[in-house]
Amino acid sequence: MTYCVGMKLDRGLVFMSDTRTNAGVDNISVFKKMHSWEVPGERVITLMSAGNLATTQAVVSILEERTKAQSERNPSLLEAPSMFQVARMVAKVLKDVIAEHEQAGQQAAAFGATLILGGQIDGTAPRLFLIYPEGNFIEAGDDTPFFQIGETKYGRPILVRAYRPEMSFAEAVKLLMVSFDSTVKANLTVGLPFDVQFYEEGSLTLGYQSRIEADDADFQRISSGWGEALTAALDSLPDIEL
Amino acid sequence: MTYCVGMKLDRGLVFMSDTRTNAGVDNISVFKKMHSWEVPGERVITLMSAGNLATTQAVVSILEERTKAQSERNPSLLEAPSMFQVARMVAKVLKDVIAEHEQAGQQAAAFGATLILGGQIDGTAPRLFLIYPEGNFIEAGDDTPFFQIGETKYGRPILVRAYRPEMSFAEAVKLLMVSFDSTVKANLTVGLPFDVQFYEEGSLTLGYQSRIEADDADFQRISSGWGEALTAALDSLPDIEL
Repeated sequence: MTYCVGMKLDRGLVFMSDTRTNAGVDNISVFKKMHSWEVPGERVITLMSAGNLATTQAVVSILEERTKAQSERNPSLLEAPSMFQVARMVAKVLKDVIAEHEQAGQQAAAFGATLILGGQIDGTAPRLFLIYPEGNFIEAGDDTPFFQIGETKYGRPILVRAYRPEMSFAEAVKLLMVSFDSTVKANLTVGLPFDVQFYEEGSLTLGYQSRIEADDADFQRISSGWGEALTAALDSLPDIEL
Repeated sequence: MTYCVGMKLDRGLVFMSDTRTNAGVDNISVFKKMHSWEVPGERVITLMSAGNLATTQAVVSILEERTKAQSERNPSLLEAPSMFQVARMVAKVLKDVIAEHEQAGQQAAAFGATLILGGQIDGTAPRLFLIYPEGNFIEAGDDTPFFQIGETKYGRPILVRAYRPEMSFAEAVKLLMVSFDSTVKANLTVGLPFDVQFYEEGSLTLGYQSRIEADDADFQRISSGWGEALTAALDSLPDIEL
């Protein structure tokens, strides 16, 4: 499994992804699920993936090659005129990679993947998309300002309740750490380390990037403090009359 | 879908279930998913169900008939010598009902159901079981003192973090209301009203029973207060150094 969250804030975009991949529960590995491209001063694009690892790696490799080989550079992520066009391009590559295996007579579901794509191109606002294996996609708005992919359920209630668009990046990471901690505690196929990245609106350059290891002091404090904080939150609610 | 939780406390057992059933998202109904039997002073048995409604109603009806018709009273829930034997009996009925449809050439999964069974028989301790559609079952212990069935994921993190065996019944209901509220907010096929029941260890009589309607004042306060309480809990955690 996987757990990734992409979030729109007033200040920009935040991305967090776990790094565990598994084929069964007895074959686990660490792979980065967050990939970025930038042309400083012009565009920043970040992609996170959940699903079949061969599919998501193929998608990233195809996109990557197109940004490098001049002859294949059209269409390239680095030349698309808008984030919407970037999303269409990424979605088409995803759909094509999955279709390739479908044609080989295999079940499509097994090769499926879902992506979160976010970024900004000079002259337009930052945008955040959720791309489905079918090759279509939706965009985050004010009503639904974040997307989750992979094992989304355990970590969702805290996001729904505590997300505020005016959060600072540090507050957003604290919130995401709690959401990821709840997920890690419940599903063995989501695991540390986590990758985290901020994109500050208008900067048009890759922002803060970090890897949160299992022994990260902040994460340890959040994880161990959350049980107590939740119990206190519960106690703070009015008592029930029976 | 459905959401039910059965919980072992030092003081006894707590049960909570939602009442929404659905065939698709455009065909929803209210059905009670909690059923109890008692012989005051001798035994109390409570059963909650998730899964195919025809299956779970058939199971309850068969168990119910056996407690009434003298000729079919053996084996009856009211005569089994232990909660373990009650669990075996219920599990066998469940398996048989599912098998009946399987033999008719239908897919078994569509008729599946999972049950939570709890209660006490005079001279033995209260016990709590989770019964699978295959007809086998597991029992709650100190390490895993509660069971969830149905849409279990959204409401799980708060249970894992805030459950304490020494909770009062009122505290347990508050905890369960938060867990159910998180689930209702995320899955349309789990809905109010909720049924709640306590069994006080050693009482050998049905305890507090209540239905929590959507306009229940306690539930409203918990539901609306929880967002604020969670945000405060998050703020109480140490800030992160970026």
